[in-house]
Amino acid sequence: MKQTFAIIGLGRFGGSLLKKLASAHQDVLGIDCDEELVEDYMAFATHTAIADGQDEDALRALDIASFDHVIIAIGHNIQASILTTILVKDLGAKHIVAKAETTTHAKVLARIGADMIVHPEAEMGRRVAHQLMTPNILNYIDLTKDYSLAEIRITNTALANKSLSAIDFRNKYRLNVIAVRHSSDNIKITPQPDEVIHLDDVLSVIGKNRDVDAFDAENSD
Amino acid sequence: MKQTFAIIGLGRFGGSLLKKLASAHQDVLGIDCDEELVEDYMAFATHTAIADGQDEDALRALDIASFDHVIIAIGHNIQASILTTILVKDLGAKHIVAKAETTTHAKVLARIGADMIVHPEAEMGRRVAHQLMTPNILNYIDLTKDYSLAEIRITNTALANKSLSAIDFRNKYRLNVIAVRHSSDNIKITPQPDEVIHLDDVLSVIGKNRDVDAFDAENSD
Ligand SMILES: Nc1ncnc2c1ncn2[C@@H]1O[C@H](COP(=O)(O)OP(=O)(O)OP(=O)(O)O)[C@@H](O)[C@H]1O
Ligand SMILES: Nc1ncnc2c1ncn2[C@@H]1O[C@H](COP(=O)(O)OP(=O)(O)OP(=O)(O)O)[C@@H](O)[C@H]1O
Ligand SMILES: [Ca+2]
Ligand SMILES: [Ca+2]
Ligand SMILES: [Ca+2]
Ligand SMILES: [Ca+2]
Repeated sequence: MKQTFAIIGLGRFGGSLLKKLASAHQDVLGIDCDEELVEDYMAFATHTAIADGQDEDALRALDIASFDHVIIAIGHNIQASILTTILVKDLGAKHIVAKAETTTHAKVLARIGADMIVHPEAEMGRRVAHQLMTPNILNYIDLTKDYSLAEIRITNTALANKSLSAIDFRNKYRLNVIAVRHSSDNIKITPQPDEVIHLDDVLSVIGKNRDVDAFDAENSD
Repeated sequence: MKQTFAIIGLGRFGGSLLKKLASAHQDVLGIDCDEELVEDYMAFATHTAIADGQDEDALRALDIASFDHVIIAIGHNIQASILTTILVKDLGAKHIVAKAETTTHAKVLARIGADMIVHPEAEMGRRVAHQLMTPNILNYIDLTKDYSLAEIRITNTALANKSLSAIDFRNKYRLNVIAVRHSSDNIKITPQPDEVIHLDDVLSVIGKNRDVDAFDAENSD
């Protein structure tokens, strides 16, 4: 479904958001007060405008209330981020996404009516910490407080060249194996018990957090 | 397993990385040239130091080569980021993670020996774009080029209050349902065919990207 997006602030976050939306054929207006940056995005965006988000007349002229989503991607200048959010809200924008610099900034944005708040640096900081502490967990999704899904690379030779049933995987680790990736292009979805695991295969498992952690620890030994 | 980390640059990315590692009881040294920032992190880090990453003597005095991971989280000052990375590499650091500002910056960092490069703003820009375009896909993992795992919130009444077998889910959508989350605490892993789906339940499914997209489109209708 094609939607309309206005992005105010074309820094690294706003800029990559714009490119991804444009490459998926969405209708995107890119706005920045820096003329040079706006020129950089002309080739990608449906429309562009050089404007200050704190300028009510400019926002009105751009018909900011008509967009399905307005993203305020201004970071360092917290005052400009807050003023822009207030103006966009008062002009009647339907769905406002705002980038926050700090936790306090996020609280203010929520109070003045931002519908969704994003903390790119903080969230990626936490993700990279997880990745460095558990290098064999390639990806994970928290399903509930207690359960998660994880992609785990097999590095322990004790697990290699054995079938899931020989490992007695489900009883031993209390995890369900939902996929086995043997190489980047060869994946077995919902594998049978006779599926053989090799070193460097990637298993997608689902189960309790503590069981995922225990399996990762044993595999990383 | 406890590891040792040195983080140079305590901005939003480096700072949140430090807090997450410290809360997981890892050994973390936090370094920044800004004294005030260093003071903010004293309560969290195992050690802190006020130092310029471009100062070879300072890095040597901190025994930077002894850490399991050195993270260079300097963003805007690209020259400082590059010089610090070269010095840390030459001093013999084992594993270098560097934050990149642009694609060109990332290329330079790789060339001078960074082992892992992170683009927090660009990556989160792409993630948020995905989220806004497909609001009912709460999370996803790309397993291979063609297959993915996705968490999808049920919003179409035509799918509600029916069992998986009544929907004929597997044949109709060519997806395997690996979990059904009925509420934040009530999840059924590898559900049976008689499991009944309700509005706002979250299904974890695995299958081809195009089948995930087709199901999401029908559910979002
Ligand atoms: N009042 C404003 N109106 C329009 N654009 C603005 C305004 N203030 C800042 N910007 C633009 O927003 C963009 C992002 O701002 P800035 O670089 O300070 O934040 P940032 O957090 O570093 O962003 P990123 O991390 O995404 O690069 C910049 O291109 C800047 O020109
Ligand atoms: N040469 C240096 N030595 C040590 N610390 C540095 C050096 N240069 C910059 N820093 C510190 O690195 C931190 C991050 O830098 P900066 O804020 O410019 O990047 P950024 O991309 O905006 O980071 P973030 O997005 O994580 O906030 C700052 O706290 C800054 O003081
Ligand atoms: Ca910026
Ligand atoms: Ca940033
Ligand atoms: Ca910063
Ligand atoms: Ca920044």
